[in-house]
Amino acid sequence: MKLSGSIENLITALRCLPGVGPKSAQRMTLHLLERDREGGAALAEALQMALERVGRCDACRNFTEHETCELCSDGRRDQGLLCVVETPGDVMALEQSASFRGVYYVLMGHLSPIDGVGPEDIGLDRLEARFRAGGIREVILATNPTVEGEATAFYIAQRAEQSGISVTRIAHGVPLGGELEYLDASTLAHALTGRTPVSGTDA
Amino acid sequence: MKLSGSIENLITALRCLPGVGPKSAQRMTLHLLERDREGGAALAEALQMALERVGRCDACRNFTEHETCELCSDGRRDQGLLCVVETPGDVMALEQSASFRGVYYVLMGHLSPIDGVGPEDIGLDRLEARFRAGGIREVILATNPTVEGEATAFYIAQRAEQSGISVTRIAHGVPLGGELEYLDASTLAHALTGRTPVSGTDA
Repeated sequence: MKLSGSIENLITALRCLPGVGPKSAQRMTLHLLERDREGGAALAEALQMALERVGRCDACRNFTEHETCELCSDGRRDQGLLCVVETPGDVMALEQSASFRGVYYVLMGHLSPIDGVGPEDIGLDRLEARFRAGGIREVILATNPTVEGEATAFYIAQRAEQSGISVTRIAHGVPLGGELEYLDASTLAHALTGRTPVSGTDA
Repeated sequence: MKLSGSIENLITALRCLPGVGPKSAQRMTLHLLERDREGGAALAEALQMALERVGRCDACRNFTEHETCELCSDGRRDQGLLCVVETPGDVMALEQSASFRGVYYVLMGHLSPIDGVGPEDIGLDRLEARFRAGGIREVILATNPTVEGEATAFYIAQRAEQSGISVTRIAHGVPLGGELEYLDASTLAHALTGRTPVSGTDA
């Protein structure tokens, strides 16, 4: 059908967003034009601003507008406790749990030789330099429990141990609110292997 | 948690899109920053362009970049056949069916006295002026089959008949691929009332 060029363009452009197909893109376009032109203008500005200003933190590779991100430059956080994650989204999730007061290192991916992703591509050279520079007591590996995530964790663990840093892996097991009956076998196997002594019967 | 201001802004701004909650907005933001900065820039530009250029067609009130939209100014379309719809999305849907060669009139809503939406608010004054100006043979009412849509259709039908224009309503009935068993009672009632003679036994 014939459509005004710039309407058609907007529908196409919206499809760069994850989870937005042709129908949603059309609905979004008509919504913005009909009912929320102000919101649309604000969105265009926020997009340009973020794309222009947001880069990577020098220390942890997370997104930031500054040279060093707010978390790395926060004096109240424990710089000796380093949590390694795959993506900025993982940092957000961990921060929302409000149970970690150390700093992060964001790989922006995981080792994947098949896709040509080697140690340098996910910043492991700089991470090793930080290990050798000293000051880190413990590395917490919080990569995803996938084949690539586990391989990446294993690689980092070896390097950290070479620098005499103690290495831990976040616990894998039954999620809160989860029901044993519906869990997959490998999660249950992990939960059993990783069982911890009940308090009072300290091992 | 502490986030770079412009990342936070972008997450908030994305929530003006219909169907986008806080989690999707975060996912979209990280996706754009991590993997599709080009797409994000194109989106910002397309948004600004559309908001700046797209206005209403003088003749049919649909969205267009010109004074008169592509459909109204298309000489190959039958200007004597006018289809009245509620939204630009309805025009897109009808155009996709490729079974209508007349022109449209877009109300951008429906009569709704409770919400203070009167005839002028949905352009019925200008529609009546077009009826009186002559040149229209048939008005097809394609407002939605809701209480407000039906009331709006009824209102327009009266005005069109006053100008001696024949008025039709699009058929309501069983959708193709639909199963009778799962249809609601009012659709079935409509389907029965609106039954048409089978070809060959012309009434």
